[in-house]
Amino acid sequence: MGEFDIIDKIRREILINDPKVIKGIGDDCAVIDRGDFFELVGTDMLVENDHFHLHWSTPEQIGIKAMNSNISDVAAMGGRVKYAFISICVSESVDEEWISRVYDSFNIISKDNDFLILGGDITHGENVIINICLIGEVERNLCCFRHGAKINDIICVTGNLGGSAAGLYLLQNSPFLRNLVRVKENYRMNSIIEEAEELQIEEELYKKGMLYALNKHIEPSCRIIEGKIIAKFANSLIDVSDGLGSEIRHIIEESGKGARIYANQVPINKMLYDVSRDPMPFAMSGGEDFELVFTIAREKIPLLKEQLVEIGTEIFEVGKIVEESEGVKFIENGREVEMPRGFEHL
Amino acid sequence: MGEFDIIDKIRREILINDPKVIKGIGDDCAVIDRGDFFELVGTDMLVENDHFHLHWSTPEQIGIKAMNSNISDVAAMGGRVKYAFISICVSESVDEEWISRVYDSFNIISKDNDFLILGGDITHGENVIINICLIGEVERNLCCFRHGAKINDIICVTGNLGGSAAGLYLLQNSPFLRNLVRVKENYRMNSIIEEAEELQIEEELYKKGMLYALNKHIEPSCRIIEGKIIAKFANSLIDVSDGLGSEIRHIIEESGKGARIYANQVPINKMLYDVSRDPMPFAMSGGEDFELVFTIAREKIPLLKEQLVEIGTEIFEVGKIVEESEGVKFIENGREVEMPRGFEHL
Repeated sequence: MGEFDIIDKIRREILINDPKVIKGIGDDCAVIDRGDFFELVGTDMLVENDHFHLHWSTPEQIGIKAMNSNISDVAAMGGRVKYAFISICVSESVDEEWISRVYDSFNIISKDNDFLILGGDITHGENVIINICLIGEVERNLCCFRHGAKINDIICVTGNLGGSAAGLYLLQNSPFLRNLVRVKENYRMNSIIEEAEELQIEEELYKKGMLYALNKHIEPSCRIIEGKIIAKFANSLIDVSDGLGSEIRHIIEESGKGARIYANQVPINKMLYDVSRDPMPFAMSGGEDFELVFTIAREKIPLLKEQLVEIGTEIFEVGKIVEESEGVKFIENGREVEMPRGFEHL
Repeated sequence: MGEFDIIDKIRREILINDPKVIKGIGDDCAVIDRGDFFELVGTDMLVENDHFHLHWSTPEQIGIKAMNSNISDVAAMGGRVKYAFISICVSESVDEEWISRVYDSFNIISKDNDFLILGGDITHGENVIINICLIGEVERNLCCFRHGAKINDIICVTGNLGGSAAGLYLLQNSPFLRNLVRVKENYRMNSIIEEAEELQIEEELYKKGMLYALNKHIEPSCRIIEGKIIAKFANSLIDVSDGLGSEIRHIIEESGKGARIYANQVPINKMLYDVSRDPMPFAMSGGEDFELVFTIAREKIPLLKEQLVEIGTEIFEVGKIVEESEGVKFIENGREVEMPRGFEHL
């Protein structure tokens, strides 16, 4: 039984008989009707040695990743974050300074995004675990769900995909980086990128496309401003936490539709071709890119693009919503091919 | 830097300039003004081998403990739970059935208490971790904080203290129980209590006061119904998650008062005297009893007692609120003694 099976099981057993609950399990956030606005609630848990490593990332970077992966869920409803609740389990591998630096990072992000940290819990265990629960808000008519996709909608994404998964792949498989990690085991509290700077091999990493991917994995950003703009135009919206393939599946399953994805249009930074000859699986099933995927009526795209260009964000048209009976088709050079798999995110 | 120091540091750095935030960090729940009512938000993280052990407890019992420790925080504001968000990190020590049984337990508790599970996260790691974030509600005029204690208030608790800490102490120190744990390592998914039943040594455990303490530690209840009643009468309210001493300190620090605690009046089940000649430290600094501690004007006690007796709950008067300058005094047989320590909860 995988993650989705368990979530499905829970969902089936819950009879929502509360008129205030607009959406329970099955979207990026739960949605509660608070009269003037919808309240959004989302939660994400990040685990040491799975979502982050203490010797790959600085405490600030771990804070950024934990917070942005959560903010991304609020962005994917078109909302703004209001309040954060942070639980952290610390291990003996980290000291006071480490904990303090993670919280400094949370404080900076909360100030930058104008939300408040209102609570949390600190406990001890064998590994570092960070769980964040965010409460956000969105105007009733601007809340954008996964389930609204319409036939002939264009499927778009907000930026390049696959970077984070490629970074993780490198950290796990590159002998070059493994040596770098070994070198710096002693200084734990630095990041692998700082380490590369110190050893003056930054340029070498950059030339190999490694630095791009590492940065995407270690210090991902998210699309909170874009989410609010896109929600005004889109019919459905989700963030990329498990790969484009998985997210489009969520949209069409919740919307009762089918999809065509055009392989040649999936945006992948050319630097990833230095990391792998075929970076498509990173983009399709790698995850943790925290870009937004949405479906939108074709005629609304120009106006949306106009508004996004003002904040420097480009969007990419990667597919089309079709009838449910047509299923999901992945099309490469006009031919139907199998959807790339191989980086199932746990 | 301990847990409270870190929380204090965070708290100092947060300037709450949001008129909707009635209370941020520094009470059992954060309190947000939603117009007709106050929204309560609390979160607690439970860690394997600290808050629970897989071979001490069944999955249902772990679910009960995780949920009740969280519900207790809402009870301590006088509120009712509305929505739950559950993040769980599972390890290779548990299987599908285990996970499913924990969620069955959550579903039963949510039905019994009339709240909804609206979201969560499932991830993987080396240990089992459960984080729950609860959203509750309370009428504006019935929300009860830690900071309202008044001079001459009587300090009361809702039931016997020290049971949970005594249970933990036994599990960690009793050679008899250690053998029992060893015996049942193979069956992991049973609890130590079920094991005792199977070995027909239940009565023996009971006679030694062990079963009482083990039950309190492994399957604690909480005081959600009592909280709503007490909040109508009390000036300050908190739940016992870190021992009576620690909770009274929170109340007087937040209220700017002092306290006298009468040792002879602290309610301790007589069975705990079979576990330890001096069970007072379990009650004062053991924690996880999830009883409620509150301060109340003397004249309101009879009416409160009348309402609580209807649901079969007794209360115990353990002390008095005094001037801040008098500090905290622990009084035994009329003599001032030092407050018992020794079971600092991590």
